[in-house]
Amino acid sequence: METKVPSLDELFSPRGVAVVGASQLERFSFGALVVESLKEAGFPAIYPVNPKYAELLGLPCYPNLQAIPGVVDHVVVSIPAESALALLDDCAAKAVKSVHFFTAGFSESGWTERAELENAMLAKARASGFRIIGPNCVGLFVPKSRLANSIGAPLDPGPIAFISQSGGHAQNLPFYTGPRGLRFSKVVSYGNGLDVDEGELLQYFAVDPETGIIGAYIEGVKDGERFLGALREATRRKPVVVYKGGITEAGKRAAHGHTASLTSSVEVFHAACRQLKTIRVDDIEEMIDVLVALRFANPVPRGNGVAVVGTGGGPSVLAGDGMEKAGLHLPRLTAEVQAELGGFLPMAGAILSNPVDATNLLFPEAISATMRVLGKVPDIHMLIYHLGFHPVSRWGGGRLSSAAFLQPAVDALLHAQKAIGKPILLALRPPPDLDGMKDFLGAQAAFVGAGFPVFHSLCQAARAMARVVAWKQV
Amino acid sequence: METKVPSLDELFSPRGVAVVGASQLERFSFGALVVESLKEAGFPAIYPVNPKYAELLGLPCYPNLQAIPGVVDHVVVSIPAESALALLDDCAAKAVKSVHFFTAGFSESGWTERAELENAMLAKARASGFRIIGPNCVGLFVPKSRLANSIGAPLDPGPIAFISQSGGHAQNLPFYTGPRGLRFSKVVSYGNGLDVDEGELLQYFAVDPETGIIGAYIEGVKDGERFLGALREATRRKPVVVYKGGITEAGKRAAHGHTASLTSSVEVFHAACRQLKTIRVDDIEEMIDVLVALRFANPVPRGNGVAVVGTGGGPSVLAGDGMEKAGLHLPRLTAEVQAELGGFLPMAGAILSNPVDATNLLFPEAISATMRVLGKVPDIHMLIYHLGFHPVSRWGGGRLSSAAFLQPAVDALLHAQKAIGKPILLALRPPPDLDGMKDFLGAQAAFVGAGFPVFHSLCQAARAMARVVAWKQV
Repeated sequence: METKVPSLDELFSPRGVAVVGASQLERFSFGALVVESLKEAGFPAIYPVNPKYAELLGLPCYPNLQAIPGVVDHVVVSIPAESALALLDDCAAKAVKSVHFFTAGFSESGWTERAELENAMLAKARASGFRIIGPNCVGLFVPKSRLANSIGAPLDPGPIAFISQSGGHAQNLPFYTGPRGLRFSKVVSYGNGLDVDEGELLQYFAVDPETGIIGAYIEGVKDGERFLGALREATRRKPVVVYKGGITEAGKRAAHGHTASLTSSVEVFHAACRQLKTIRVDDIEEMIDVLVALRFANPVPRGNGVAVVGTGGGPSVLAGDGMEKAGLHLPRLTAEVQAELGGFLPMAGAILSNPVDATNLLFPEAISATMRVLGKVPDIHMLIYHLGFHPVSRWGGGRLSSAAFLQPAVDALLHAQKAIGKPILLALRPPPDLDGMKDFLGAQAAFVGAGFPVFHSLCQAARAMARVVAWKQV
Repeated sequence: METKVPSLDELFSPRGVAVVGASQLERFSFGALVVESLKEAGFPAIYPVNPKYAELLGLPCYPNLQAIPGVVDHVVVSIPAESALALLDDCAAKAVKSVHFFTAGFSESGWTERAELENAMLAKARASGFRIIGPNCVGLFVPKSRLANSIGAPLDPGPIAFISQSGGHAQNLPFYTGPRGLRFSKVVSYGNGLDVDEGELLQYFAVDPETGIIGAYIEGVKDGERFLGALREATRRKPVVVYKGGITEAGKRAAHGHTASLTSSVEVFHAACRQLKTIRVDDIEEMIDVLVALRFANPVPRGNGVAVVGTGGGPSVLAGDGMEKAGLHLPRLTAEVQAELGGFLPMAGAILSNPVDATNLLFPEAISATMRVLGKVPDIHMLIYHLGFHPVSRWGGGRLSSAAFLQPAVDALLHAQKAIGKPILLALRPPPDLDGMKDFLGAQAAFVGAGFPVFHSLCQAARAMARVVAWKQV
């Protein structure tokens, strides 16, 4: 007998969360991590479950689900796989809506009896009318619902959804992209995808009004037809960025051991991405850069022409080479445009040919004037300003980190962007030392705060923008 | 009449340095930067020259070269190009050995009369028996001689020589690579290469006993035959890593505006590199990674087989894909080896197939035991341990940053490397926040201090090691 299964919307807004297998705060205790994360996020009804404790991490602790006085919609499980079926009986009795298994050691282990165990778990969930997330994953992060599964990520919601077969990527992405301005509607790590899988998630996010951009890390697809249908729906409505893991022999082997994924159809997968206007990326860094580009490049550039502005001949040559290899085009400037630039940029030690390199391009007035001249060139569709954080650049007054430089620079770029109607991007190169990192993070926060897309190198910016321009032009 | 020209060895150990055009400490004053750098490095005889001041930056300041009481072997020049010839007359009168022009606006400006000016300068240098470095460059950094041209780089000498047509790369490389353990014999930024050029420098470093590894950033080669001869000599004796700037149309344009380099013969250049056992890299990040690999991979791996060890399924899949694409091979482990690993690594949530991923691979005993098992596999030629700095990894005790974790981990890897006779590499992923960066820099310092090559991602490690293995196998 099958009963009505809860919708994903219900899963994303639980009223109470039980954490089965919560334990004392110590390394590798996922249960304790979830309890602490929920506390940090301000989730109102957290119920640690462990017969060993009466109190845990400052909260009353319960011997089992039935002992919990309040409503429990969502259960987080980190007890051994052997106890999974018995626990699911408890879940049914408590009338929960979803059970998330952090617990690993199921089908991905390669043992037949563990694959059979998964099937029995799914049957029980179907019969009792609850959903399973995982097993072998870190589950749900829904900022709006204060549902958290990690620490360090910003807790304010935003328009990005991320689905991930990897728990590590699911925990890392919001943390790593926080300082670059990305905020999330929902992040779902679904591991082996026994019940909730990539197809259903993509269907949901295609029409989720809180989600404007979808990112996905996928190792294997279980139901190809459903997935492709969902991808078609999603890509019609919003940008979808997919990173497919398990491309090479060693990657496939790792993916199989990681989430029991069979990744044989790489070519089919890539062909489907091309056909369905999906933005495919090659690694998680590129995923981050493309999400930043989609979120903050304003407007999306109408072509691949870029003007590169900043100081340093070496970086400029590198920019010319690396950015053209990455798929952008640096249009040559006419003599007239060069002459106009020469009106306020010095000749000596400067390159006025795009890349435009001059020492006074550290001064807001020169930056702004340069952007306005280049912004008028028809085949320049976007402009990028690059800035390094070498000690020399913070020497003689430490200007790059000072409000006296930053705020005028931010304002100059904002006004220039508005005036020219083309997106301005930032490439800020992280320094190797702690002092420099302070300056760098301050500058990044200022530009991100003003709504600019910030990349960490010219080539990374070019790689991401080339993907976005190609997507826009399909 | 030509007189004997000083050798490069004489240029690298001046007894006194005059800085012509030194000015008050302020942004973009290269003269002031050099004076401060020399002071910081402890150079004993620094003579600022500027008729406007009697004292500058805490030192007596002289109106001209003739007024300096002591010996002046080396002159650093940052006055306008128009005054260059008159200054060279002063240099001749003072019997200096070398003149470094930071001053730009010569042949790279594209103006015919400035190219002619360069020729007149060279003629004067030849007639008077001194050498010219540049123009349009940042000149010399020789730690052993306390000769410095920037701030932030370690001042202790080491076995790396770096020659660079870009001043930015010359100043950046020692600074960026300092925390990764690279130290330099001599760094020469030679700009337009009017007199001292890439060919002569390469000839010198080929036989320089203080130099074990040569890096070069080259935009254009003026004397192809001399350069190739020097490259042949150098590559016979030591590893030579070359990054050629100006590959694409935009890169070439920038290179021409940057150092007046004509970069047309890219294919010829690359063919020569292949033939002469030169390690060619595609950007400055890869230059850094390859130098780190050459300096610290111990011994150089005898093949491209790698074992990847650490925690995190997502990173492991990424590692499998990215590292194989970069040219390394992750051999599949036999059932026997996997069983041996299973003796001390958990089954659940683990991948024992290479990449090897298990949560207890954050404990030194498990790391060491894993390395020893994998090190016995014949087609594994190197082993890499990877570590992230997500808040979760420093949660529940902050182990990764604590001496309680770091020192045992370093010792475990040192002993394992010695026991297996194959190099162990580190991939430490930099975090996006200041707290994480403190942990990261502490961990990096510990591993670098013990002599390990540290990379900032698995893929960057793979890319560099693939270059080094290919070079070793030629």
